[in-house]
Amino acid sequence: MTDPAASAPEIITAAILVIGDEILSGRTKDKNIGYIAEYLTAIGIDLKEVRVVADEEAAIVEALDALRHRYTYVFTTGGIGPTHDDITADAVAKAFGVGIDHDPRAVKLLRERFGDAYLNEARMRMARIPDGGDLIPNKVSTAPGFRIGNVFVMAGVPAIMQTMLDAAAATLRTGTKMLSETVRADAREGDIGGPLGEVAKAHPGTAIGSYPFFDPERGPNTNIVVRSRDPHSLAAAKAAVEAMLEQVRASIK
Amino acid sequence: MTDPAASAPEIITAAILVIGDEILSGRTKDKNIGYIAEYLTAIGIDLKEVRVVADEEAAIVEALDALRHRYTYVFTTGGIGPTHDDITADAVAKAFGVGIDHDPRAVKLLRERFGDAYLNEARMRMARIPDGGDLIPNKVSTAPGFRIGNVFVMAGVPAIMQTMLDAAAATLRTGTKMLSETVRADAREGDIGGPLGEVAKAHPGTAIGSYPFFDPERGPNTNIVVRSRDPHSLAAAKAAVEAMLEQVRASIK
Repeated sequence: MTDPAASAPEIITAAILVIGDEILSGRTKDKNIGYIAEYLTAIGIDLKEVRVVADEEAAIVEALDALRHRYTYVFTTGGIGPTHDDITADAVAKAFGVGIDHDPRAVKLLRERFGDAYLNEARMRMARIPDGGDLIPNKVSTAPGFRIGNVFVMAGVPAIMQTMLDAAAATLRTGTKMLSETVRADAREGDIGGPLGEVAKAHPGTAIGSYPFFDPERGPNTNIVVRSRDPHSLAAAKAAVEAMLEQVRASIK
Repeated sequence: MTDPAASAPEIITAAILVIGDEILSGRTKDKNIGYIAEYLTAIGIDLKEVRVVADEEAAIVEALDALRHRYTYVFTTGGIGPTHDDITADAVAKAFGVGIDHDPRAVKLLRERFGDAYLNEARMRMARIPDGGDLIPNKVSTAPGFRIGNVFVMAGVPAIMQTMLDAAAATLRTGTKMLSETVRADAREGDIGGPLGEVAKAHPGTAIGSYPFFDPERGPNTNIVVRSRDPHSLAAAKAAVEAMLEQVRASIK
């Protein structure tokens, strides 16, 4: 007999918390959610939820508390710069109920890079780290992000966020990767909806999604995405989708 | 004496709920949040929060209930197509505690456009509307969205969502518009952080945001965005920001 626990997939979950008035006003279009989503999927972490909130302490604390107790990891973006509207670090300290002050390690990094003259009070804000936080290096502009508990606090500027995510990722537990296969239906979504639902029911170990798109060559078309952590289940469901599509296409022609 | 209530700005709030595994996996990059954010700001509605959840009934119901009781309006995108993974309408019915069935008005629209032969069971799913819902017309592909209470349920495909949002917007109460002015600092964010915070403190009726960007001509640069519902407060804060910037730039040169 095989031990079922030995082959049970390990599932690691995550949420993203985007912090920024500029995203909610529409002035800045977020580029981090899609990037982080793809990144986490690739390394075996399931992104389960995203929230975007304003630069308001109460909103940040409430969202962070909701997410950090529910998911393995939370990644925040935005609000860790040198100006008065950068309040993420203080809000995170409040959520964790810890103090916050200039962190000697962060101050040292900034001083080595920029020198004392450049390090005014505003720039020193970027060295404020909640007690117990570990720095996340920033290869682009030095001012670090930080990790506290299961929360990773990163910059909002995409290039900086991306280098921080690389650094953070090296420290993450990852789970059994979600595998996926995309099958191009060459049929309209409405024509395959019924039989596709039957295939989905018959393959409960997989998640099957249907995504219509406009195909310049044939007009309305559909991508079927089959996902599973188990390669055998994935292959079986994909084969069933392909057989179903062949039947549907034959019946339409 | 003037009546203070007469000049008090009316504030209308909103949230977006994006529904879709494909956004969380990173396979599809969301294009609706930024579009709706900009749209709502332009017509005088404050977007206060965004959530993205999976195609799971419990997750949709929980997020919808949290958002619809807190904000004037909620706009959902995704999950109203013809396939088994399109469960938004059922989840919304569950959240509101109402029944759901084929809506005669929606069936009529689909029948007139597509004819009976085309209207299989899968396509008929798109006519399922919670009891008490009003249809939101879809000029692109006919299958309607719907409004129930303060919730607007729209498609995920951007072109379809956009025509639905146009139709929905005509029915919305709108508030006093948030006005904004952008001032290009021609200075680094860290150099203006201190004095900008002072300006922000001195102008409590405005929200002042600072957004660094890389300027191909001068390197690190900053946009200051001043926002207020009152044009006089806006102008005063903008003038204060400009005066502050002149001083800072003079002191640096």
